[in-house]
Amino acid sequence: MADFTRQMPRIATVVYPKDLGAILIFGDIFPGAMVLEAGSGSGAVTIALARAVGDGGQIISYDLREDMIKRARANADALLPNTSHVTFKLGDVYQGLEENELDRIILDLPEPWHVVPHAAEALVPGGVFLSFLPTVMQVHDLTQTLRSQGTFDIIETVEILLRPWSVTSRSIRPAQRMVGHTGFITTARRCSRRSPQNDINVAEPTD
Amino acid sequence: MADFTRQMPRIATVVYPKDLGAILIFGDIFPGAMVLEAGSGSGAVTIALARAVGDGGQIISYDLREDMIKRARANADALLPNTSHVTFKLGDVYQGLEENELDRIILDLPEPWHVVPHAAEALVPGGVFLSFLPTVMQVHDLTQTLRSQGTFDIIETVEILLRPWSVTSRSIRPAQRMVGHTGFITTARRCSRRSPQNDINVAEPTD
Amino acid sequence: MADFTRQMPRIATVVYPKDLGAILIFGDIFPGAMVLEAGSGSGAVTIALARAVGDGGQIISYDLREDMIKRARANADALLPNTSHVTFKLGDVYQGLEENELDRIILDLPEPWHVVPHAAEALVPGGVFLSFLPTVMQVHDLTQTLRSQGTFDIIETVEILLRPWSVTSRSIRPAQRMVGHTGFITTARRCSRRSPQNDINVAEPTD
Amino acid sequence: MADFTRQMPRIATVVYPKDLGAILIFGDIFPGAMVLEAGSGSGAVTIALARAVGDGGQIISYDLREDMIKRARANADALLPNTSHVTFKLGDVYQGLEENELDRIILDLPEPWHVVPHAAEALVPGGVFLSFLPTVMQVHDLTQTLRSQGTFDIIETVEILLRPWSVTSRSIRPAQRMVGHTGFITTARRCSRRSPQNDINVAEPTD
Repeated sequence: MADFTRQMPRIATVVYPKDLGAILIFGDIFPGAMVLEAGSGSGAVTIALARAVGDGGQIISYDLREDMIKRARANADALLPNTSHVTFKLGDVYQGLEENELDRIILDLPEPWHVVPHAAEALVPGGVFLSFLPTVMQVHDLTQTLRSQGTFDIIETVEILLRPWSVTSRSIRPAQRMVGHTGFITTARRCSRRSPQNDINVAEPTD
Repeated sequence: MADFTRQMPRIATVVYPKDLGAILIFGDIFPGAMVLEAGSGSGAVTIALARAVGDGGQIISYDLREDMIKRARANADALLPNTSHVTFKLGDVYQGLEENELDRIILDLPEPWHVVPHAAEALVPGGVFLSFLPTVMQVHDLTQTLRSQGTFDIIETVEILLRPWSVTSRSIRPAQRMVGHTGFITTARRCSRRSPQNDINVAEPTD
Repeated sequence: MADFTRQMPRIATVVYPKDLGAILIFGDIFPGAMVLEAGSGSGAVTIALARAVGDGGQIISYDLREDMIKRARANADALLPNTSHVTFKLGDVYQGLEENELDRIILDLPEPWHVVPHAAEALVPGGVFLSFLPTVMQVHDLTQTLRSQGTFDIIETVEILLRPWSVTSRSIRPAQRMVGHTGFITTARRCSRRSPQNDINVAEPTD
Repeated sequence: MADFTRQMPRIATVVYPKDLGAILIFGDIFPGAMVLEAGSGSGAVTIALARAVGDGGQIISYDLREDMIKRARANADALLPNTSHVTFKLGDVYQGLEENELDRIILDLPEPWHVVPHAAEALVPGGVFLSFLPTVMQVHDLTQTLRSQGTFDIIETVEILLRPWSVTSRSIRPAQRMVGHTGFITTARRCSRRSPQNDINVAEPTD
């Protein structure tokens, strides 16, 4: 998967291997899961998700642009032995989701907070919401929306840094250049609905 | 998976979620793959691998210690819906591997260089060898053995750092404490056999 | 200095050695410089600055609180051979600065943007403004104020991470725990005054 | 200093500003100190040290190569208001040091372990030995030599990472590229002489 991602034509932001692995693990993607993804982008995340849920699972991948979907589908067809469990849909997830009983929602979109109220309805209890965002302000706005929604718990943000090493017979050291930043991964778990006022004590973590 | 790993009783070194994700992606684990793992440890890697290969794949998990295998099997039984594709074996992979036509070999062992000659025989061409090691000296010794073996290509080492963030309504900043180190991930790809002397030009990467 | 800082009683936020070194270098502190600092805090930055400017320089250290000044002065007296070039002043730098012809302004305050207009007047052309801030939002607000002021150039923010290593005869690896975050260092250089509308092309760097 | 270093012609390895600051702080350079440095290189470290010790201190800067010394001296003359307290010397510090009663020894050399026995003689009790090294193996060899010498205590290695940030009105995020590695800083403090066998309990730190 790492090799494949680096070879794929870069149409949208490409999600780096280090982040793909983290999305699978922190998104808790499991075989048989029903996963909604948006946007389809280049299809890199779609393919990783499709592999991880297996044939018994289901991937619904939304994008706003017909050409993106075409490209993502072509990449998926080329790289997956079977795509019968992957559905690409043209549509705007900010406006709403047609699906429900979703196990996981994985978003690589600039304004994921618009999806939060729809996700609160569409996710099963215990379902995971995951968003990949490049800037800190976006993380802030998303976190505030998730908190005030009152349906989400365990709201956490991490970033993953990959440090390559150079190892030769006489020299071992980190590589002199590295990728300094790709994006932040924010996750939240849908809990049983509570009234927002119960959240007062939950809200602000400190360390 | 992230949640699960943190809850699991710590018997052997626990592999952190950030590393589990990287092992799946940099190990290029795919549905249907035949994967050998050693050692079984707590079963955390076993379970992640079993999920990723799906029911159509196969996991053979070796450990030297009967009690480890017992524990890993108990964890796998508790956390996987189906373990018919997971086999635990008591044995010392430093001495040799009974399997062949393996797609992937994933090692969490202190001296993985002893497995390199056996891996060269047991992996299919294009098969991936991955090792997780805590110290730099071990990475050096493994890399030297992989290079001199003459059967492996694209020998690379990375480490993954996870930086947690603290996000509240008024404050956004990285968390004040973080895990500074878990281990290094070294990968290599088995190529078609070549005589070692052809390797002269491959050997020492620079950056 | 590193040793000393760790031993000092922690009254205000202590600035870590890694950040002290960066403040000296990115603040371009030189022998003979006239430096304004606020707040005095524990005196750790004051002492590092006093050493770096030497007896031929001058440190004016402001704090809002009498008790802080007392403590900082006691620490400075205990740790510097000579404090004749260090002046502590009770005062609120948000309201204005009595000094001018300052070479450097070093701020460890929660709302340094209030100081920007005063700094624009008090710094010599080429003078350096440096601020140490724990959260990203503060860095954003400060940067916006520095940009819109039209008197500052080369506005940059960095953070410094220190990774300790564990080296024994048999094992070399990073330490397993590290400090994940202390603060961000924002620097700007006072240029000759320009009208703000000339700034249109300066404004937004990309990488 | 940060600006200056980036402008300086790169003849030898240039020490980055982030490391210069750390060398001053972790090397505990103070006004009036007597400091031996090797090699002179481009003079960047020499100049930072000369500033930090002030006119009351003294810098002796060794290099093996006449042309390096010429260049370092030219840079020092151009950038320091006064160089009367800086002496450049042609010589091989692996063979021995002519100086004694040194407060600090700062080494940017490939095999600093050859200097350890000479440093043990030349440093005052409490004096600091600091070495900047690019690879892990070198750090290992130096640390082992410092430990077995029996004259040094508080032997520590750190590395400094600088992460630049991009801050605009609408976007705050780390820069997408960063320097992944420059070097490791190893420090040790000369204690009163002890017999090496007393070191058995000191030797191996764990975390």
